[in-house]
Parts: sequence; structure tokens; C-alpha cells
Amino acid sequence: MAIIESVPNISEGRRPEVVAAIADAVRAVAGVRVLDVQSDAAHHRSVFTLAGDRGPLKLAVLRLYEESLKVIDLRSHQGEHPRLGAVDVCPFIPIEGATMTDCVDLAREVAAEVAATFNLPVYLYEEAASIPARRHLEDIRRGEFEGLAARLQQPDWKPDFGPAAPHASAGATVIGARMPLIAYNINLATDRLDVAKKIAAGIRMSSGGFRFVKAMGITLDGRGVVQVSMNLTNYEKTPIFRVFEVVKREAARYGVTVLESEIVGLVPSAALTQAAEFYLQLAGFSGDQVLENKLRSSE
Amino acid sequence: MAIIESVPNISEGRRPEVVAAIADAVRAVAGVRVLDVQSDAAHHRSVFTLAGDRGPLKLAVLRLYEESLKVIDLRSHQGEHPRLGAVDVCPFIPIEGATMTDCVDLAREVAAEVAATFNLPVYLYEEAASIPARRHLEDIRRGEFEGLAARLQQPDWKPDFGPAAPHASAGATVIGARMPLIAYNINLATDRLDVAKKIAAGIRMSSGGFRFVKAMGITLDGRGVVQVSMNLTNYEKTPIFRVFEVVKREAARYGVTVLESEIVGLVPSAALTQAAEFYLQLAGFSGDQVLENKLRSSE
Repeated sequence: MAIIESVPNISEGRRPEVVAAIADAVRAVAGVRVLDVQSDAAHHRSVFTLAGDRGPLKLAVLRLYEESLKVIDLRSHQGEHPRLGAVDVCPFIPIEGATMTDCVDLAREVAAEVAATFNLPVYLYEEAASIPARRHLEDIRRGEFEGLAARLQQPDWKPDFGPAAPHASAGATVIGARMPLIAYNINLATDRLDVAKKIAAGIRMSSGGFRFVKAMGITLDGRGVVQVSMNLTNYEKTPIFRVFEVVKREAARYGVTVLESEIVGLVPSAALTQAAEFYLQLAGFSGDQVLENKLRSSE
Repeated sequence: MAIIESVPNISEGRRPEVVAAIADAVRAVAGVRVLDVQSDAAHHRSVFTLAGDRGPLKLAVLRLYEESLKVIDLRSHQGEHPRLGAVDVCPFIPIEGATMTDCVDLAREVAAEVAATFNLPVYLYEEAASIPARRHLEDIRRGEFEGLAARLQQPDWKPDFGPAAPHASAGATVIGARMPLIAYNINLATDRLDVAKKIAAGIRMSSGGFRFVKAMGITLDGRGVVQVSMNLTNYEKTPIFRVFEVVKREAARYGVTVLESEIVGLVPSAALTQAAEFYLQLAGFSGDQVLENKLRSSE
């Protein structure tokens, strides 16, 4: 049995009962587990983490689209987070016994079925992208729901599946395959937003930083501190500890210290083991020495 | 699902086919895995490492007692390692989703059942000990199998379960609960043995150091460096990172740096996560955020 993860993001973060009903519908699919549901009211967005083998997972994701489209109307949706659709984005992620190719295939299958069933324009992204220009979510999402009608008419932005016109209430959706993503934030012991912004610019790929880091500097309202808010898109190649050390060093240059860091949601065990290996200067360490890995591998 | 480890030590280390048959009997219990079996002929002793949830693990341990008692006779047993019984000692160790209290409870349950089923005297030790004088294995085992009949008649050494007389061939057994033990070494970039010895003395409990550290300084022959060789007996209360940082600081006082460190054998994932939390200054992190833990716990 393979384990594939899916992390659909929906544009509803303010009605807990609505989010719970969607989670229940997904949970009702045998063979799929709902590992996590996180809602953010300011973003007006919720993130589901599902896991299962490809068949059950596909069913569960289709149920999620069905239920979400019934209750979310983008025409009256306002939140801090950019969004294109009621189900904004839905990646598939290889965890165990499945390859990236399996996840790309699954993404395409689900995309075709979502487009046909709900008459919804679908873009493929990341590893499943049909052309390089559609690889990055932020490029696909530019203009958001409000700019969608105009965009879909451009020849370059014909959707990969479904009609070249927005769904009235649900907009469009983006489906794809990628590595596990780690949402990682570092809080600085200062209220100087410029410091967080400069550090973010220094470490993110788009402005010359690490290959697998997206970052921005923000103020944490009510706490009087700023944050370097990040997505680490490939922890194997750009590990957490390296990003942390560089942020700490760059902050020191402004006379600022790191207050704390945080991982939002789930993180693969290996990403933490990496940090322990680095800081403890562990020589000759192997993942097989982790008791829990040993347990799993002998199953 | 919880994961509890058990590490029964049996007084047979010279007949591989006998040890293999016992391992097979244990392996036949669904839901229990045999992670390791180590035999030592000089000690005439074998150490099993088993893991599973409490129900299956209890069954497996009872099977191990049953098979071991059939084939081991202490009256003709001679080895370098002290021993009191055919199954000499059997600790339960919390790994995941189980507390020390769970393991103490399990130890008492198994002790009662072993005593009743096999008419065997049972002492409880470590965290499961009924009185402080029975906490340490070496105190319980003093006098060994040969002194057992006399000892069991002393009021202070009435067993916790079972008859106050030795089992003719199997003696007695010691069952308990303890934390996982981590074999952890730090290599120093020097050949000065006195430095390793001074640091070891500074950090081990016996000479005023950390409560859960045993340590000694040794020379690594052929490498020209010295090592602080340690056993960490409770990584939750005396974590690896704290020991590492103190050793590094004490070494600096002699102008010596840490070359590397190493973990010998298995280590619980949580002991590494702890280090990641410390060095990355992770705030509000919970073990539930580790993807693999989450997958297992919702199975």
C-alpha cells in the first residue's frame, strides 16, 4: 500500500461548522485519513492534510471539491491570502511507496475529473505543470479570482482542463504534485519590519537566496515583533538548519536576535533529524538508527 | 496505537538454535516485531529487543517466558554475566504514545501473570519498583541464582509476585519499566586523555554531574583522539543537546574542540526532535506535528 498526501487549500476560514462538515465528508471515505485541518480567519482559508492510497485519496479529493463548491462563493470572499478559487489549490505529495511520477499521474487524473464533473477550469502546477510558465503557483494565481475571466481568455492562459471561463462562484482551481512543503517562520525580537523584509529578501530564491526558500517579512500584530515567514519547498536540498543559521546571522548584523521559530502544521521526521545531525555534529548517523524508522521498515 | 519496547535478557547465549526458536515463537505473535537479538557466548546470555502495543507485547513476552523456561536450566548455567533466572530481566520502555506510567502498569500486569502461570518469584525494578531498595537491578541480583533460596526467605526480599522459593530450573525473574538508554559518544580533537577524563567526571552523576549521565574518558586507539563515552539513561530529563553543549564548553576551557559525536545503535525519534527544537528555538512544537507520528497515531 502506498501513502500519498494531499493538501487541498479552500477559501473558507471563518465558518468552523462549514469547514468541519467538509472534513467529515472527506473522513467518510474509507482508506483516507484526515491528518490535519487548519483554518485561518485573517486569510479566510483552511488547509486540509489528507493521506491514503491513490484510489481512496482521489475519491476523497473529489468529495472535498463537491462539498466546497456547494458552500463557498468567491464573489463575496475577502481575505489576506491570494486565491483563485473555492478550492484554491490541491497538491499530491509522495510519502511512502509512491514516486513523484505516481503523484503527477494522479494529479492529472483528478484534474480531468474535477473539470468534467464541476465544469471548473483547472491549471496543473509544480511537477505536474504542462509548461514551465505554469510551474509556480504565484504565477498562475496572479490577478486572483477577480482577474480570472480576462486571464482565461488569453491564449497563454487557456486552462489545462475544463472551460476557458471562470466558474461563477468557484473560479478556477490549481492541481499538481510536489515535494512535502514545510511552513517555517522565524520571529525576531524587534518590531522593525524593514529588518524582517531585508532578511527575507536575502534568503529567498526569487532575490538570490536559497533555491528552495520562499520568504517574506511581516509584522505579527499584537505581539510587537516581526517574522520572517517562509515556505521550504525541498528540505532535503535546502535544510531548515541552514536557513535558520543564515537568518540568525543576518539578524545579528542589525543588532537583532532570534526570539523563536515555529513549524506550522506537519513536518517529515527526516527534516528534524537533519537538524539534530548538524548541531550535534553526528558522524556516521543513519536514518535506520531511528527506532521508529526501524519499526516501520520491518513491518 | 502506542509503541512500547521490551528488552528481555535470557540466560542462554551458546545454543544459537535455541535462541532462534525463542525468537521465532515471539515473532509469531501478531503486532509484535523483533528488532534485534544479540547473543554473547562468554556471558551465556541473549538480549532481545521487541516492540509493539501493550496487548501484543504482553502476549509476546509471556511466550518468551514459556519457551525460555522449557529449555534453560540455571542449575547448569555458568557465564560471566550475573543472573538470577532463566529470563533474567525484562524491562518495558515507553517509545511513542505511551507514558512511563503505562509501562509501569504493564510491567505489574506481566509480573502478576508470569508469577501465576509459571509459579516463578518476580521482583519489580526501576520505575516499577515497589520500594526504593529494589530500584536497582544490581541490588536485586546480588547473590545471584545460587543465593536465591536463602534470599527469598528474608522478610526484606519477599518477592513482589509469586512464591517465596526459587523455581527449580528458572530461579526468579526481574520485571520493570525504564526509559530508553542512549549510547552517546563525543570525540574530541585531541589525544589528551586527561581532558576526556576531566570532562567525563564533570558531567556524570556519580561525581556531581547530570542526573541521567554515566560517562568515562577513553582513548580511541588508532585514531589519535579521545572520547567522552556515555550512557544517557533518561533523555527527556537529561537531553542529548544539553550534554553536548556542556562537553563542548568544558573542552573549550582546555583549548580543545569537538571533532564529532556519535549515537551507537538505536535512538528514539523524540531524542533527536528535542535537539532540533532546542537549536532551532522552536516554540510551541508538538510531536503530533511529525508527519510519521501523525500517520501512525491515526491508523
